[in-house]
Amino acid sequence: MGDLITMDDLTNEEILQVLDNARSLLPVAKGDVYLPLLQGKVLGNLFFENSTRTRMSFETAMKRLGGEVLNLSSIGSSVAKGETLYDTMQMVDGYADIAVIRHPNQGAAQYSADAVEIPILNGGDGAGNHPTQTMLDLFTIREAHGSLEGLNVMMVGDLRYGRTTHSLSHALVRFGAKITLVSPESLRMPDEIVSDLISHGGEINETEEMSLSIDSADVIYMTRIQKERFPDEDEYIKVAGIYKLTEDNLSGAKAGMIVMHPLPRVNELDASVDSTKHARYFQQAFNGVPTRMALLCRSLGVKIPKKVNK
Amino acid sequence: MGDLITMDDLTNEEILQVLDNARSLLPVAKGDVYLPLLQGKVLGNLFFENSTRTRMSFETAMKRLGGEVLNLSSIGSSVAKGETLYDTMQMVDGYADIAVIRHPNQGAAQYSADAVEIPILNGGDGAGNHPTQTMLDLFTIREAHGSLEGLNVMMVGDLRYGRTTHSLSHALVRFGAKITLVSPESLRMPDEIVSDLISHGGEINETEEMSLSIDSADVIYMTRIQKERFPDEDEYIKVAGIYKLTEDNLSGAKAGMIVMHPLPRVNELDASVDSTKHARYFQQAFNGVPTRMALLCRSLGVKIPKKVNK
Amino acid sequence: MGDLITMDDLTNEEILQVLDNARSLLPVAKGDVYLPLLQGKVLGNLFFENSTRTRMSFETAMKRLGGEVLNLSSIGSSVAKGETLYDTMQMVDGYADIAVIRHPNQGAAQYSADAVEIPILNGGDGAGNHPTQTMLDLFTIREAHGSLEGLNVMMVGDLRYGRTTHSLSHALVRFGAKITLVSPESLRMPDEIVSDLISHGGEINETEEMSLSIDSADVIYMTRIQKERFPDEDEYIKVAGIYKLTEDNLSGAKAGMIVMHPLPRVNELDASVDSTKHARYFQQAFNGVPTRMALLCRSLGVKIPKKVNK
Repeated sequence: MGDLITMDDLTNEEILQVLDNARSLLPVAKGDVYLPLLQGKVLGNLFFENSTRTRMSFETAMKRLGGEVLNLSSIGSSVAKGETLYDTMQMVDGYADIAVIRHPNQGAAQYSADAVEIPILNGGDGAGNHPTQTMLDLFTIREAHGSLEGLNVMMVGDLRYGRTTHSLSHALVRFGAKITLVSPESLRMPDEIVSDLISHGGEINETEEMSLSIDSADVIYMTRIQKERFPDEDEYIKVAGIYKLTEDNLSGAKAGMIVMHPLPRVNELDASVDSTKHARYFQQAFNGVPTRMALLCRSLGVKIPKKVNK
Repeated sequence: MGDLITMDDLTNEEILQVLDNARSLLPVAKGDVYLPLLQGKVLGNLFFENSTRTRMSFETAMKRLGGEVLNLSSIGSSVAKGETLYDTMQMVDGYADIAVIRHPNQGAAQYSADAVEIPILNGGDGAGNHPTQTMLDLFTIREAHGSLEGLNVMMVGDLRYGRTTHSLSHALVRFGAKITLVSPESLRMPDEIVSDLISHGGEINETEEMSLSIDSADVIYMTRIQKERFPDEDEYIKVAGIYKLTEDNLSGAKAGMIVMHPLPRVNELDASVDSTKHARYFQQAFNGVPTRMALLCRSLGVKIPKKVNK
Repeated sequence: MGDLITMDDLTNEEILQVLDNARSLLPVAKGDVYLPLLQGKVLGNLFFENSTRTRMSFETAMKRLGGEVLNLSSIGSSVAKGETLYDTMQMVDGYADIAVIRHPNQGAAQYSADAVEIPILNGGDGAGNHPTQTMLDLFTIREAHGSLEGLNVMMVGDLRYGRTTHSLSHALVRFGAKITLVSPESLRMPDEIVSDLISHGGEINETEEMSLSIDSADVIYMTRIQKERFPDEDEYIKVAGIYKLTEDNLSGAKAGMIVMHPLPRVNELDASVDSTKHARYFQQAFNGVPTRMALLCRSLGVKIPKKVNK
């Protein structure tokens, strides 16, 4: 009920409702207003994989709402002693009111949700879903464009292993987006995901060439080519550095176009972009706080006031 | 005064008083009621050995009572620079109002308590004592049976290195328990502990055979055979898997018998037991929260209301 | 504005004002009074190097004032993925209201402060500055001697790599101290620092001999010779253990003389000193809490009441 495992757990209306709530909570997220809506509540942060931004923005979100955080990453020790995920989750069920789980294996979040009574938020499992990231991406896009309807979105880089783009493209198609997928052949978005996007009415265009689509884009979503995903270093070297967005590339871009990136970045997004009006990636990282606040409140059944006053 | 180093620091009456308080705090432990009895207080979590459940349930206990937690495990860095436990404890004395210490060496908790002014709780030192675990075990047994008096308790597995059973058996004997110790020869409870139990009036029965005593037991306390305690892997392999409690074993058990385990478990406690009415180990892990709440309040001299209302 | 990168960011008057405030906050630092001046505020603890006392006393300071702490040390994971300090700081800017940074590279704190909007406190960068340590050292000296004016201060040990003494000697000279620098030739205070002290009116005396100056000292500031600073272990062995202060050395010391040490200590400061009236190093470690409270409030523009009542 309060679980969030994939974006399919939310209707379009619910998505917009959460994004409205996130906007209401902006002054709290910035620390300008103290609103202890979650006082006495405990969030279990359960990260079997590293994730700085996801973990930290959940922690900030919880703390700025007066709640507490248990960092359960150290459960590594019990897992090393042979503990099953099922048993670990029973412990979390006893110690926390809600938990976010990041896990290397696809399906681990659903499995965890089935094992316990408390609400589970999927903080990314394998190459699968990462719905809270998608929600903050949607929040960022909506704040910039006023709406999610019918946008031209480019996604660039590693579209094969990057769960961020899988989850986001699916959500955007539900709002009528046209999506241009830019990647080297070896890092194409998996066929089954592309088919799924098309079957949901998505207008999908695949290319290896980044520059041609920039001028018509409303959103350029850059991603890092992740060295750690390549079994073979030679394969990585072949594609690393293949795309590099610089200020010069943006000379013909629409005035309102925004550049996004889930961060951390390496070379694919040049520092020269930082000072342009298009850069929105640091804002996007911050947006994890209000968006996750709204999602925590939703899962815990806590109502958010429409207007938060200083 | 506020220290808790061994179970001998508590009279039987004090034990029952703490268990009564733990029961009163159940709604707070579950997060149904916010009762900031320890607001402004800081607990130092000082773990020189890993311990997921002990550390986390102390943290949850403190936070649900409005207190704060300092995770001092990183003092590893100072210790690596050659710092003595005495010096480390002076630092803790300055930064926290109370501390829980887990240490590989027997006697470390008492040494720490002698070095500082703040109350020290022993979170397990060597093969010695682990009184807060014993208290939550007693709480679990008392909630199930209504009393601690005169129970038939089986303890199974590694009774040599497992401090949990050393500490618990001693406490149960004080309440007139009959204890059956089930272990392979190489993992028998140390003679000096058995002698001590008997000298305190305990009725002790030792055996290598698990199945014979199940039907008369009020409590079966399973333990993991800890690979890390064996200097030699061959010795471990000989005894690993020697006991395995399954649902089938329990067909003749008393209706009110409960199965406990300090967790994590490996193979000694089959998942088939989870769905029986006897399983109480996940509840037992949760019970660390209300019990440690009551112990924290005791050490800090904070009175617990008899009735906690929503 | 709210940044604290070097001691030069504070005038002598401001230093004394912060020290006055730290004194006012002593009952809060000890946990005797709960004063949530920083409720709803989040401190980012950003440690690229280990530092138990600095990190923990900041955490205690923040929590005892009702604030929250984000431990961002795990950003190591993003840094390992190739993230720049600039990008990391943008994230911190979004998640925290203020941050303390400890970094191996000199200049990293100033660079961070320039990169973000929130106030940055330098928690030690390279062999450079460590102003919050200097402030707690000054607090300790002033509480003992009633004033910072015209004291005789000995600094002993590693004066080459130890940033603590660099930062403190500079500050003391501003208050008219006479400083005796005691070190082996290979660990002398760098010439440019000595010249700087002299150019600011400092009366500086350098020697390899510890015992001669003890009787005239108001403060003896011992430091550890840090093995990790020596590229070559032979060089370390030559100078390790060269100074060792014991109770016997102090027989002719002034009654009000205090012995300080930033801790952890190894052999340079004998345990026999602990029970003398001169020992002030454990107190000094605790003084990190009220001093950092005062500095956090200063940077966040929060006014401290002159008198804190129980």
